[in-house]
Amino acid sequence: MKRVHLYSDERVDDLLTKNMKIIQSKEVFCFSLDAVLLSRFVSLPMKRGRIIDFCTGNGVIPLLLSTRTECPIDAVEIQERLYDMAQRNVALNDLEDRINVYRGDVKDAHTFLRNGGYDALTCNPPYMPAIGGDKNKSSHVAIARHEILLTLEEMIRASSRLVRSGGKVAYVHRAGRLADIMTLMRQYRIEPKRIRFVHPKPGIEANMVLIEGIRDGKPDVKVLPPLIVYNEDGTYCDEIYSIYYGDRRRE
Amino acid sequence: MKRVHLYSDERVDDLLTKNMKIIQSKEVFCFSLDAVLLSRFVSLPMKRGRIIDFCTGNGVIPLLLSTRTECPIDAVEIQERLYDMAQRNVALNDLEDRINVYRGDVKDAHTFLRNGGYDALTCNPPYMPAIGGDKNKSSHVAIARHEILLTLEEMIRASSRLVRSGGKVAYVHRAGRLADIMTLMRQYRIEPKRIRFVHPKPGIEANMVLIEGIRDGKPDVKVLPPLIVYNEDGTYCDEIYSIYYGDRRRE
Repeated sequence: MKRVHLYSDERVDDLLTKNMKIIQSKEVFCFSLDAVLLSRFVSLPMKRGRIIDFCTGNGVIPLLLSTRTECPIDAVEIQERLYDMAQRNVALNDLEDRINVYRGDVKDAHTFLRNGGYDALTCNPPYMPAIGGDKNKSSHVAIARHEILLTLEEMIRASSRLVRSGGKVAYVHRAGRLADIMTLMRQYRIEPKRIRFVHPKPGIEANMVLIEGIRDGKPDVKVLPPLIVYNEDGTYCDEIYSIYYGDRRRE
Repeated sequence: MKRVHLYSDERVDDLLTKNMKIIQSKEVFCFSLDAVLLSRFVSLPMKRGRIIDFCTGNGVIPLLLSTRTECPIDAVEIQERLYDMAQRNVALNDLEDRINVYRGDVKDAHTFLRNGGYDALTCNPPYMPAIGGDKNKSSHVAIARHEILLTLEEMIRASSRLVRSGGKVAYVHRAGRLADIMTLMRQYRIEPKRIRFVHPKPGIEANMVLIEGIRDGKPDVKVLPPLIVYNEDGTYCDEIYSIYYGDRRRE
């Protein structure tokens, strides 16, 4: 067993797949269903190719992607505390030879990473506008949630620079931003190709959208069957249940 | 009872609501579920305001809208044969005082209709690209289905001219065109505000999208619960069943 240090506010959680573990902290960063869904949604190269995750936080997405592909994965995080947590998560899961975490600004990623060199890119970016909300509660949480250091347009422009022509780019975001996301993707030559909406319950509006584009792709988008998180009776739908509980039978 | 003439290829169908009748022809134009869904989806003024339907075909959308609002409805159709059918449908349902059908080109609608004078606009435009498909089977069907006389961009530009600031614009289209539709709506200052996807069956990609925008609206779009036409067992979902059979109980 490997030893990594833990800060007093941190805990080690089960990542619910292949015995992976993840360090998180309620005061700093906890992963959400959004990251889990994005990690399962994105189209990945299997053996050859390079993958990158922007705004990686504690590294949850690279950890999950590593269970789906043998390709090397790079990750970028601007906050020192989260970068350090992501590094320890990579070590905790013995993935140092497959995941490289970089501390840096996504806006400058083309200067320290392979410009146009990636086959797939993921990002679970800050969702909320820079003004209002809970942005003053904690600077770590605020920066991860609000467009303080990185706007949607800056993130999409940076994505477009990093992936090769034909490369895949996948995001998870608030469904309400769909028009912004699609128009910006197209503006930066990432053609939207696959979309999946996430509805909290049947009969309720979508709160999240998963969207994948192809750099220089041809127009024509598939709108996949929606993911409806809870059934009418308040239990998880089969897909979410199997994410959280694997093959264990419902009682 | 009013008398209207019928051509030999035409039949009179039940419009399935409020005893309305509609003349159609398999060789020229039959309305589809798309038109019915758009008529129920669009947000309408109730008593004051003007409504317009582009590419009206045999007038099915104005007829259906007239059951939801007391406002006057204008409609535009470029094909003489369909314009004539729409006129007869208005007469057949005694709606001459509420629905005015104009023969003309949507691209020029701002020259013969009230520029910026409409509170709501609907359009079930030609869906298919101008090249390929069944465009040579019948010129009437081809023009109604393919972007021969009107492209998506021309239709959206014309919509933007006709509605007032704050007016509603609603379309039904192939889901695969979503990125085109949203970027063009925004380009012509119709902000997408409500979207509903139509899936033929559970677990199947959407084939249609219903989308409503507001002229000069603020960004933020609601993605409504999807409409899934057939249940797993091949029966209609409740919503479609009630459209086709009203309050009649399932057997």
